[in-house]
Amino acid sequence: MSAYPDLRLKPNAHKRVLRGSPWVFSNELELDSVAKALEPGALVNLKGSDGHALGVAMFNRHPLIAARLFSRDPKTQIDTAFLATSLERALKIRDRLFERPYYRLIHAEADGLPGMIIDRFGDVLVAQLNTAGAERLKPHLLEALDHVLAPKTVVLRDDSPARQLEGLPPSFEVPVGQLGGRIEVFENDARYFADLESGQKTGWFYDQRLNRRWAAKFAGENRVLDCYSFSGGFTIQAALAGAREVVTLDRSQTAIDLAKEAAAANGVAEVCRFVKGDAFTRLAELAKNKERFELVIADPPAFVKTKKDLAQGLKGYRKVARLAASLVASGGTLFMASCSHHADPASFTEQVKRGLNDVGRQGRILYSGGAGPDHPVHPALPETAYLKALLIALD
Amino acid sequence: MSAYPDLRLKPNAHKRVLRGSPWVFSNELELDSVAKALEPGALVNLKGSDGHALGVAMFNRHPLIAARLFSRDPKTQIDTAFLATSLERALKIRDRLFERPYYRLIHAEADGLPGMIIDRFGDVLVAQLNTAGAERLKPHLLEALDHVLAPKTVVLRDDSPARQLEGLPPSFEVPVGQLGGRIEVFENDARYFADLESGQKTGWFYDQRLNRRWAAKFAGENRVLDCYSFSGGFTIQAALAGAREVVTLDRSQTAIDLAKEAAAANGVAEVCRFVKGDAFTRLAELAKNKERFELVIADPPAFVKTKKDLAQGLKGYRKVARLAASLVASGGTLFMASCSHHADPASFTEQVKRGLNDVGRQGRILYSGGAGPDHPVHPALPETAYLKALLIALD
Repeated sequence: MSAYPDLRLKPNAHKRVLRGSPWVFSNELELDSVAKALEPGALVNLKGSDGHALGVAMFNRHPLIAARLFSRDPKTQIDTAFLATSLERALKIRDRLFERPYYRLIHAEADGLPGMIIDRFGDVLVAQLNTAGAERLKPHLLEALDHVLAPKTVVLRDDSPARQLEGLPPSFEVPVGQLGGRIEVFENDARYFADLESGQKTGWFYDQRLNRRWAAKFAGENRVLDCYSFSGGFTIQAALAGAREVVTLDRSQTAIDLAKEAAAANGVAEVCRFVKGDAFTRLAELAKNKERFELVIADPPAFVKTKKDLAQGLKGYRKVARLAASLVASGGTLFMASCSHHADPASFTEQVKRGLNDVGRQGRILYSGGAGPDHPVHPALPETAYLKALLIALD
Repeated sequence: MSAYPDLRLKPNAHKRVLRGSPWVFSNELELDSVAKALEPGALVNLKGSDGHALGVAMFNRHPLIAARLFSRDPKTQIDTAFLATSLERALKIRDRLFERPYYRLIHAEADGLPGMIIDRFGDVLVAQLNTAGAERLKPHLLEALDHVLAPKTVVLRDDSPARQLEGLPPSFEVPVGQLGGRIEVFENDARYFADLESGQKTGWFYDQRLNRRWAAKFAGENRVLDCYSFSGGFTIQAALAGAREVVTLDRSQTAIDLAKEAAAANGVAEVCRFVKGDAFTRLAELAKNKERFELVIADPPAFVKTKKDLAQGLKGYRKVARLAASLVASGGTLFMASCSHHADPASFTEQVKRGLNDVGRQGRILYSGGAGPDHPVHPALPETAYLKALLIALD
């Protein structure tokens, strides 16, 4: 027996769920008066049209993804103990993968906790609750976190656009401990600083961890250009790998200041040169001045924000590839990434290929990857693997 | 001016080449009497129907891929110096990536040398010449190899099925030095033995190097099953990572003997148990006996040998996933790979998902990868990225 009210699917809509999907779309649900009366984020006992129990889900009839499964066992109670078990399972995996406690701890559906993102920075946790269901579970989540990790500080960075779709207001909260300015981040062998209050997303992009290591392999003794540096993720690791110079571009002074601080903390300030400005403008200037780099790193912001933007956004990647490739010295290496959910890996690779072709550069893809293993992918939601990265050795 | 006879494309057939492809298909060529008189493997000056030069290619009118570009500059001479430059470029990339000289040195088109595969085992090189053009260049290639690497031994393992399509007979040759039985291979921190004469392909599968390291991360203190072990690639690295037991299956006694020798050489013989037999049969037996492993590794041979086999072959991956997942202990990890060219990554992932679903197992994909960086991919031939690997943490 489930502890939660029933929510029925339309005929045949259970099939995708039975094939492994944790999502039900709003047009697949029988929205009777009982369902309509449920509070956004209510826990429900999901059932097929024939009454067959499918599991326990969070429900909100407003967004397109209206129900998200927590468990396929209808008897499951979604409480502090359930959340603690999920946290422990996620922790056990990260313990195998990382030497230091700096990683994404919970990556939503893929870690069994839909709507919840938790990044760990030692004893500081930064969470994003992106669904009404996740928001309602906040007290249980804080209890579970305390039970499993006893963090000194928990920050709730609830300012993601996803919350709007769920009818949730933006919010910023420090329910546990205090946040005293920027914090330290350790990644691979580098030390960084992150601003958990005003930096993008949770303040740090752990997803590029492996890609930063790959790019750095081609930095030693070389002149490197990092086109969209943010807080210096790629820059510092390239400098630590022995680059003779790293030219670092970003349009945000705040980001450049954090990157500069990181350069000093890692003892590589003297090989780093920071330039503020728009990437497209600066890249064109560098090309005009016939500057060349043995490694160019381009990790731009998402150009494809919605499906509608796809064609135009893809052209952006081609343009970056063209500009960046034209700055790569003969025999040098180009690293490019895309974090656009809507651009699939094949389309991204095609645009990069076109960009290389535009400037007559031949090359070979040495590495084609995505986000690190602390950003797992749900097997039934392969489309949520948003990050694409290519490392290309040019002739 | 090109040193080679002209070969013309049909109208519009130049477009794909101009967009970056190094291949021309036989139905895209104007096969006049001059072209028909060219020896298989002849070097040609490839031209569009309007006479625009496209570059220098190797040509054989018999296979589907009739021309393969070496260079987009029609003045290029394909000689010992050209091959040496290509080898040096490939070597420079591998020097950045690997501590020891054990890797694929030349991966055909992606390394600028169509039809040529060269694996390096220290001062022993094993090459495969898979096109008539590559075969004709053999004397130049041997000279170039001597110039760049001065190998003690060069083995030509010319027994690939690809040669048949080119009208070439199978052949085995040791044109440089001598081959005295099995040789040593060093990969990650492990030591192996390979049989260059009778082992599969070139005798060793370097393409799984990174995947072996990923799988090994989940081996420590665990009971591990390696279902298709070949010469023990995954087994030894799992054992070195601290597995408490590794059960290793293969149907070839020769492969098991090499794996056993490797286990002894790495000091892990006492945790390894070798079982000869068919994987499907043995997996079913293990399941019947309710055996459980915290890590199951399944790297089967290609199930999809031709496009026609696709539907049936894909079912094979689903079956392996189902059988393997049923042997994974609660909270354990499944590693699965596919080396079928014809199965794309999305189709492979879908079959693995179905296999997990068949036995009611939930999980998260921690890592989704391919061949290591010594098996680069030509940007215009993304479909040649044949190896797919998934590391999945199960509930």
